[in-house]
Amino acid sequence: MWLKRLTRFSRRDVIQSVFSQGPRLDCRRSYYTTKGDMEPETKKPKVEDNGHREDQVVRDLSQFEFVRVLADYSQKKVVCVEGRIKDKEGKAVLWLDKTPFSENVIKSMCTEKSQLVPEFNNDVYGSYSTLVDPKLNEIKTTLVYPATEQHIQRFLQKPLYIVEETPECYNTVTLPFIEKEQFSVDWVYNILEGKKETDRIIYEDKDPDIGFTLIPDLKWNAKQTVDLYCLALVRPRGIKSLRDLTGKHVSLLKNVLDKGREVIEEKFKIGKERLRVYLHYQPTFYHLHVHFNVITFEASGSHCEKAYLLRSVIDNLEQYPDYYQKATLTCVVSEGQNLCQELISKGVIRKLENTNKDE
Amino acid sequence: MWLKRLTRFSRRDVIQSVFSQGPRLDCRRSYYTTKGDMEPETKKPKVEDNGHREDQVVRDLSQFEFVRVLADYSQKKVVCVEGRIKDKEGKAVLWLDKTPFSENVIKSMCTEKSQLVPEFNNDVYGSYSTLVDPKLNEIKTTLVYPATEQHIQRFLQKPLYIVEETPECYNTVTLPFIEKEQFSVDWVYNILEGKKETDRIIYEDKDPDIGFTLIPDLKWNAKQTVDLYCLALVRPRGIKSLRDLTGKHVSLLKNVLDKGREVIEEKFKIGKERLRVYLHYQPTFYHLHVHFNVITFEASGSHCEKAYLLRSVIDNLEQYPDYYQKATLTCVVSEGQNLCQELISKGVIRKLENTNKDE
Repeated sequence: MWLKRLTRFSRRDVIQSVFSQGPRLDCRRSYYTTKGDMEPETKKPKVEDNGHREDQVVRDLSQFEFVRVLADYSQKKVVCVEGRIKDKEGKAVLWLDKTPFSENVIKSMCTEKSQLVPEFNNDVYGSYSTLVDPKLNEIKTTLVYPATEQHIQRFLQKPLYIVEETPECYNTVTLPFIEKEQFSVDWVYNILEGKKETDRIIYEDKDPDIGFTLIPDLKWNAKQTVDLYCLALVRPRGIKSLRDLTGKHVSLLKNVLDKGREVIEEKFKIGKERLRVYLHYQPTFYHLHVHFNVITFEASGSHCEKAYLLRSVIDNLEQYPDYYQKATLTCVVSEGQNLCQELISKGVIRKLENTNKDE
Repeated sequence: MWLKRLTRFSRRDVIQSVFSQGPRLDCRRSYYTTKGDMEPETKKPKVEDNGHREDQVVRDLSQFEFVRVLADYSQKKVVCVEGRIKDKEGKAVLWLDKTPFSENVIKSMCTEKSQLVPEFNNDVYGSYSTLVDPKLNEIKTTLVYPATEQHIQRFLQKPLYIVEETPECYNTVTLPFIEKEQFSVDWVYNILEGKKETDRIIYEDKDPDIGFTLIPDLKWNAKQTVDLYCLALVRPRGIKSLRDLTGKHVSLLKNVLDKGREVIEEKFKIGKERLRVYLHYQPTFYHLHVHFNVITFEASGSHCEKAYLLRSVIDNLEQYPDYYQKATLTCVVSEGQNLCQELISKGVIRKLENTNKDE
């Protein structure tokens, strides 16, 4: 599934996506675009039928030599490390991700094998360190070897910048840059025209002015609703982002909000009181699209510096039709993005001194 | 420190805080307000000098009997479980929190004791389950025993609701409710007047109209900047929330934004390109205050359904002085909050059927 979708993304999009998604990323996703093409690198040894290449399977971590931390998502208990494999050439990347608790694991943990080391005790509260059977406390691990310099750069956590984009900045820096660097959104047109991914469509409204297509976002497997994440692609073409929206788009946006929520309630039993519906600014691709998350899922791109609630967008446009042409809009860029370099070179944002790791 | 601050919060505030903060919460914090007072319950056995009560220290989890999951923050690898202690009366609450990786731990993990169980191998990518020495993969654990029904209710994850509050809803439901239920903000006045916590003040601007006091938020220990979190309390009284702001507050807000960022850059070397500055709606307490986070810290309250960027607020007020009296504002309420019950009873939001656990 992830492989198929890659054909949509330019390398720049993927890089952008790596840093905006952090540990939610399928860390393999970006690999196949290393050379700007869409196929696996053919010079690398082919995968065996069973998916295992015996010569590459590692049995333990004694062969891995630590070099440096590339990225640390400490709140999510995820870390990405650069290293070497003992007595072998080249670099390696190790991605470590602690697993969430499941009910079965918790039940299995309740034995004398789970030792508690007391830290302090205060009234009814006891604080401990628990040491449990390694099998009940595994770490999801991905090893990339040999890793190219591009791999390293792609996994390296780059500094993020908050940008306060005035209308003037948009017109003189961002817009010319987007127009120059514009990537194809043919993959969106393929979906809208029913040429691709027809089996993934959740709902389709074919009205040319206010219609849209609702699909599961790539970050969601469309099974459990605990991380429900859908994407609505609008039918009209040429609306690049929030900046292009005016009063005349209100009926389109209302249709997306109302029908999108209705369909999600009907199909997934998630009512509108539990849905976060928003646009990104800057978006990952410049064809207007809307994100739908279940509220309890803390999607990385849903923080206030990047996510604009569709309800507020509609409200703004109803009251002030040119709101988004006059507004200062905040967004986040990463040092891995070309737009970031452009904003630095034009003096919109100051380059940070420590460019290796953000905090 | 956390004990001291408790004197500020009413029980309702604390409950609200529990659900808005999720796993960031010091899970002890809410305990002392069980009875609506601010002191430890005196009927419980006293804490020994060394902080340990031998009869309550648990050595392993064999005595803990699983009953149900109270809360599951799977993205953060944190879970809260209700159970019983074998052959003992009453309930127990177990809070399990996997620890983040540290450089030292990663280095120590690179031995043959860290076994890799292969899952699949595809070209340069190998996917494994790693089983490591329990000492390198501990679980931070809190055991509450005996736990009262209030403890259980406080830890129980309650459904969250997104509310789209129109001006009419504010005036007829929210405002009368806030006025009726209003809690004292004397603790804020104590700080502003220099009566309390003077040692915690980072910066003070005593101007009565545009002044403010900057302090570290309770969630931040003011040591490392990786989770920098400051709070600006404005000097003028009587501004309850975003809803009260008009064009006449622009100079106050600009002062908070500009001087707040300046001070943080000077003291903590975090430039304005790396600061997320926002207000909450609804706020936890009704005296206008502004949140400052470092951008890489994904604070739970910084998602777009609750957090309003100060830069946008200023921009809106400059262009449309009565913006916040006319706007539909989105906020999040939890079934544990009285305001939520009020909104349900007035038909603003629909009560969810599954009231035990959100997703």
